[in-house]
Amino acid sequence: MKRRICVVVTARPSYSRIRTALQAIRKHPDLELQLVVAASALLERYGNAIHSIEHDGFAIAARVYMVVEGENLVTSAKSTGLGLVELATVFDNLKPDAVVTIADRYETLANAVAASYMNIPVVHVQGGEVTGSIDEKVRHAVTKLSNIHLVSTQGAAERVRRLGEEPASVIVTGCPSIDIAAEVAASPALDFDPFEKYGGVGPRADLSRGYLVVMQHPVTTEYQEARHQVDETLYAVKDLGLPVLWFWPNVDAGSDGTSKGIRVFREKEQPENFHLFRNMYPEDFLRLLCGATAIVGNSSVAIRECSFLGVPAVNIGSRQQGRERGRNVIDVEHDRVAIAEAIRTHIRNGKPERDLLYGDGHAGDRIADCLSTIELTIEKRLTY
Amino acid sequence: MKRRICVVVTARPSYSRIRTALQAIRKHPDLELQLVVAASALLERYGNAIHSIEHDGFAIAARVYMVVEGENLVTSAKSTGLGLVELATVFDNLKPDAVVTIADRYETLANAVAASYMNIPVVHVQGGEVTGSIDEKVRHAVTKLSNIHLVSTQGAAERVRRLGEEPASVIVTGCPSIDIAAEVAASPALDFDPFEKYGGVGPRADLSRGYLVVMQHPVTTEYQEARHQVDETLYAVKDLGLPVLWFWPNVDAGSDGTSKGIRVFREKEQPENFHLFRNMYPEDFLRLLCGATAIVGNSSVAIRECSFLGVPAVNIGSRQQGRERGRNVIDVEHDRVAIAEAIRTHIRNGKPERDLLYGDGHAGDRIADCLSTIELTIEKRLTY
Amino acid sequence: MKRRICVVVTARPSYSRIRTALQAIRKHPDLELQLVVAASALLERYGNAIHSIEHDGFAIAARVYMVVEGENLVTSAKSTGLGLVELATVFDNLKPDAVVTIADRYETLANAVAASYMNIPVVHVQGGEVTGSIDEKVRHAVTKLSNIHLVSTQGAAERVRRLGEEPASVIVTGCPSIDIAAEVAASPALDFDPFEKYGGVGPRADLSRGYLVVMQHPVTTEYQEARHQVDETLYAVKDLGLPVLWFWPNVDAGSDGTSKGIRVFREKEQPENFHLFRNMYPEDFLRLLCGATAIVGNSSVAIRECSFLGVPAVNIGSRQQGRERGRNVIDVEHDRVAIAEAIRTHIRNGKPERDLLYGDGHAGDRIADCLSTIELTIEKRLTY
Amino acid sequence: MKRRICVVVTARPSYSRIRTALQAIRKHPDLELQLVVAASALLERYGNAIHSIEHDGFAIAARVYMVVEGENLVTSAKSTGLGLVELATVFDNLKPDAVVTIADRYETLANAVAASYMNIPVVHVQGGEVTGSIDEKVRHAVTKLSNIHLVSTQGAAERVRRLGEEPASVIVTGCPSIDIAAEVAASPALDFDPFEKYGGVGPRADLSRGYLVVMQHPVTTEYQEARHQVDETLYAVKDLGLPVLWFWPNVDAGSDGTSKGIRVFREKEQPENFHLFRNMYPEDFLRLLCGATAIVGNSSVAIRECSFLGVPAVNIGSRQQGRERGRNVIDVEHDRVAIAEAIRTHIRNGKPERDLLYGDGHAGDRIADCLSTIELTIEKRLTY
Repeated sequence: MKRRICVVVTARPSYSRIRTALQAIRKHPDLELQLVVAASALLERYGNAIHSIEHDGFAIAARVYMVVEGENLVTSAKSTGLGLVELATVFDNLKPDAVVTIADRYETLANAVAASYMNIPVVHVQGGEVTGSIDEKVRHAVTKLSNIHLVSTQGAAERVRRLGEEPASVIVTGCPSIDIAAEVAASPALDFDPFEKYGGVGPRADLSRGYLVVMQHPVTTEYQEARHQVDETLYAVKDLGLPVLWFWPNVDAGSDGTSKGIRVFREKEQPENFHLFRNMYPEDFLRLLCGATAIVGNSSVAIRECSFLGVPAVNIGSRQQGRERGRNVIDVEHDRVAIAEAIRTHIRNGKPERDLLYGDGHAGDRIADCLSTIELTIEKRLTY
Repeated sequence: MKRRICVVVTARPSYSRIRTALQAIRKHPDLELQLVVAASALLERYGNAIHSIEHDGFAIAARVYMVVEGENLVTSAKSTGLGLVELATVFDNLKPDAVVTIADRYETLANAVAASYMNIPVVHVQGGEVTGSIDEKVRHAVTKLSNIHLVSTQGAAERVRRLGEEPASVIVTGCPSIDIAAEVAASPALDFDPFEKYGGVGPRADLSRGYLVVMQHPVTTEYQEARHQVDETLYAVKDLGLPVLWFWPNVDAGSDGTSKGIRVFREKEQPENFHLFRNMYPEDFLRLLCGATAIVGNSSVAIRECSFLGVPAVNIGSRQQGRERGRNVIDVEHDRVAIAEAIRTHIRNGKPERDLLYGDGHAGDRIADCLSTIELTIEKRLTY
Repeated sequence: MKRRICVVVTARPSYSRIRTALQAIRKHPDLELQLVVAASALLERYGNAIHSIEHDGFAIAARVYMVVEGENLVTSAKSTGLGLVELATVFDNLKPDAVVTIADRYETLANAVAASYMNIPVVHVQGGEVTGSIDEKVRHAVTKLSNIHLVSTQGAAERVRRLGEEPASVIVTGCPSIDIAAEVAASPALDFDPFEKYGGVGPRADLSRGYLVVMQHPVTTEYQEARHQVDETLYAVKDLGLPVLWFWPNVDAGSDGTSKGIRVFREKEQPENFHLFRNMYPEDFLRLLCGATAIVGNSSVAIRECSFLGVPAVNIGSRQQGRERGRNVIDVEHDRVAIAEAIRTHIRNGKPERDLLYGDGHAGDRIADCLSTIELTIEKRLTY
Repeated sequence: MKRRICVVVTARPSYSRIRTALQAIRKHPDLELQLVVAASALLERYGNAIHSIEHDGFAIAARVYMVVEGENLVTSAKSTGLGLVELATVFDNLKPDAVVTIADRYETLANAVAASYMNIPVVHVQGGEVTGSIDEKVRHAVTKLSNIHLVSTQGAAERVRRLGEEPASVIVTGCPSIDIAAEVAASPALDFDPFEKYGGVGPRADLSRGYLVVMQHPVTTEYQEARHQVDETLYAVKDLGLPVLWFWPNVDAGSDGTSKGIRVFREKEQPENFHLFRNMYPEDFLRLLCGATAIVGNSSVAIRECSFLGVPAVNIGSRQQGRERGRNVIDVEHDRVAIAEAIRTHIRNGKPERDLLYGDGHAGDRIADCLSTIELTIEKRLTY
């Protein structure tokens, strides 16, 4: 009998990150994919990942609305609680042989807790990394609830083992997001018109002489400062003479501060080189990055996919603190002068070399193979 | 301004374990106690800890009914989710400076998650220990969500540090349950009639020539076997010629199996030396233990308080596996012959010496002092 | 395409009441049955209706644990809220063409609200009746949320129309519980040994010279008095010289008071003619009633099925107040003298005639036919 | 002892409607106000009623985030369930003598159910009216759960009595929203600059020669058509030569369709006479209405306050169907030609006379007086 593998996708970026693994699980002869779509992955405001998922031909085993509106710290906790209540019922119906939980978003703790408590083996993808903010607590708590750890880097594997997990339960697969980057890197030319295909707000721009891509998420434990932080980035990129393609942040405590900063900036400054996008299909986004002068902000894409692609990155603030970096990253504070200066440095230096730190482009297949063969157990004990 | 310390008590045994710390917090000039009573601590079936709490004069800041009935794995997860939803609202109202979460019961993860997500520093009491079952996952996950670790033993401190926690955040206070044991040990004679004071089911017994105390909880990850396991213990103690004082297990997935085993045994065997109690005030229970020939089962009391008190213990099965032991413990499998033999060995050997492994009797005061002076922060990062 | 009819069963007595309709829906060529089992129907303490349902060969579309433990007024509300959250997800998956909700238990409001809000036509079975207690509020609120009303009596039909419902939406089908009574009435002899088949607590009794069946539920809005009320009944039946077969009440705020009363009575009085049952298959229970000297308590069975069967009934207190009665009922207060006297009156008078007030034995088929042909709409408007 | 009156406000329009009653309760010597703010009243997207409430000096007893994001039918049900779970805990803490629930929004059913089930008398304000859509089900279901009915009109009183409620429990107080209208009517001149005070999107306009106010909410049971319906109104008002002041709809299933229609219209048509507001203080809004050429859409303000103020109203579609009307209303379908024609008719006819149908301006005081003197009971029974 095929092993039933339940994967819970709760957000647009998580879907992008796991997609090649989902495809590999779906086509694997010994596995049956049970895909649950939940939380902001169902919501239009956050990019409607559900549409991409359906567009990619996946059957959806269950949908769970679980985001309690408010975008603050209280509702983060309540959303997770609501998800836990409902995912328990979902797992009780689907009876999976293993539940796969992705990375470290706050609401993913609900998957890990529900599966753990129901004696279902938990497989954690992308554990063992180090970053700032609440993600840090979530990620390592999920590790302690998980039975199998499919990590992206050697450094991550080492950290998971030091957390007391059985060495045999820790496997370096690389990150499946790099699989998509690898496909794109094979033919990196921009083969679509982003303004026409994705609409968005603001004037068109001529992208032929370079452009900046900006993606800046609020940092949960610095809630009050979200507005200030986004302002520093907005004014840093305003006068560099390059078109700015800015992407809305995903749902999180504080994103209202960030969103408001962007709106006020546009009303007040009426910038001519500034275009706002809500989201893109991952391949399109990566292709856009391939041609970018630099990526600016605090997205993990800058650290992960862009190291593989060799795209210059200016990483701002604490959100990616502790994450392993390739040669493409310059780190700066939330300071408009420093941000602008780092971009200029990248312009002077040109494109960095590609780096296999986060994977070689075959993570999806490796994850599916691993899920089909590894011993699935719920017993675990600290190794010390 | 006083620091507001919110403690969430979710079960009768947790209350017993934390009580001296609650008293020390209440009387500390720099602290304000916010006591939340939740889950099975509110339920008659599980010993109505709320009555003991009120009897001890504590003001209750909020009550949260959160146990979804069913006593199975699905409802464990759902209860935790419901608790998470509601505790978020409770913390939002109480605005504590720190939340204290106790040990490793499944529902306590709700406290730790709610407080973490709401940027409230989390203080974990009794982390770093090693046992069998789902508690293992819960305990270390709570450690990764916590900012301050007040542990019972040197071994526990070492393990918490190895889990990547800042050494300065780990403090050995001893276990507050030992504080009560120390008070009782000062005048250990049985000063009440347990049958008269606590009622219960079954005939009175003459306790003057020794007696066995039995407390056996179902082990979550061995759900199906709960019934078999309790039978082994029931038949092991049946024919030893000593009165048996048996205590009902607390709420958990599987306790119906355990409870049913006990009921069927009584109907079928009609044992004459067998009396069932629901619960006792902790001091009374410890005093009863002081005079016991042995304690039998899988309760942590046998390992912790009884090591301090020097009470012979027969520890059955995996539930306490990995927990540090004093000289008073003999470990056996779920096997009626082995259990009976271990009890006889203890009878031959007599009382073991007392052991300060789990504390010296001053943990409550140490915890309150620590809460009043330690820096409260929500930032944390893996130490490696 | 077959119409998908989703029926939500939340308790043992509700299952008994709807069973023949479920069977008729299942075998109807134009209908597909989607059976959801929830709340106390899943719990052992309340008779495990799920086992009867499976034993009767029904496929179960979803199970929803939703009873928040505590058996008080707060948890009644919370259980209903939890059910509402989860049933919304269940209906979203099952996509029924209509949802059938049964009678007036507090938690059934969750079905009616979820379906109404999701624009699914709501069919209410057994609306329009009048009783005491919170059921009164629930029943008529469900009527106002429902689109189609399949009622038991002409009086109920008249009341639903006066509540402003379209006359065409109100159909008198009779009560499906009478269908089972009609089958039993065809061969009413006791064909099983209740003590052997159902166990229970207390000595066997000789039933050949008559016996009393007692079923007394706590009355929600008189919470404090549950204990007193059960005592009156216990002492009323104690000395009548007839065996007493007492059935545990179902889950509700206050049932702990009732249960405790029963337990204390047994310990204190050690009655010899007193046997406690948890529950029986409906046919067995009705057959037991056919031979009973009288049924005593406040169960609706005494009013409904027993009017059809011609079993003498002593109805105590306010719970059935307002319900239409046949010739078999004597009403009394919670007063041990009055209760005993009413039983003696019945003994003197012998069996009353049968009465078709609540149905003629074909309600299940009528309900299924109606569901297959009636126009399903969600629009409604007060008729005045 | 003062009677504790708990009022649950769940949305901006509900707050406007109840405000004078809240003020009268607050200052009444025999009453204590317990104000709970919940649901969309806490959310920025829906006008942050909480800010107005705090600005008006009310103490807030509890805040309950309960809106599950998604704005569809499933999340309407889930939000109500979540609210029910949490309000039970809130009422358990506040221990009110009565709970006041307002009108007929879907989530208000949570208040009524929680209070009913907890044996707290329920006071319903604005029952007995007749409209289209799901509100119809909610309103009358709340009536059946309520013990006291404080209604706006004689027609409403008559309908509540026909629903089987005790005549003595039904009192015509008038609608408290009329109290504010009465204050405004005393000095109706526009004493603020709406563009300066409230910002919003779109150009300023010269209001001196008349203007239209538009407020159009999606109609729940016509979910798919929300987009079409808003388009008819948008194009109807586009070319009438009057400035259009358009207000965003409040949270409800379908409001995304409506919002999107508005956004697309603006991008495509770039209308010069079109300004979008999010919300205003009620007095400012009413004062704006006093000077309006007409109010257009499907808001109840057009029917209620505007009948008192004598403001011409064009009421579109089914949302207000069945509500009693004064002389100021012309009803039309969702048809751009008909809408434009009705506006032109009003322009020709000029201002209609004022009408006391919905109150005389003293409802708030009457409600407070009633709450302080009426017998509070939880018992009720159908009058027929």
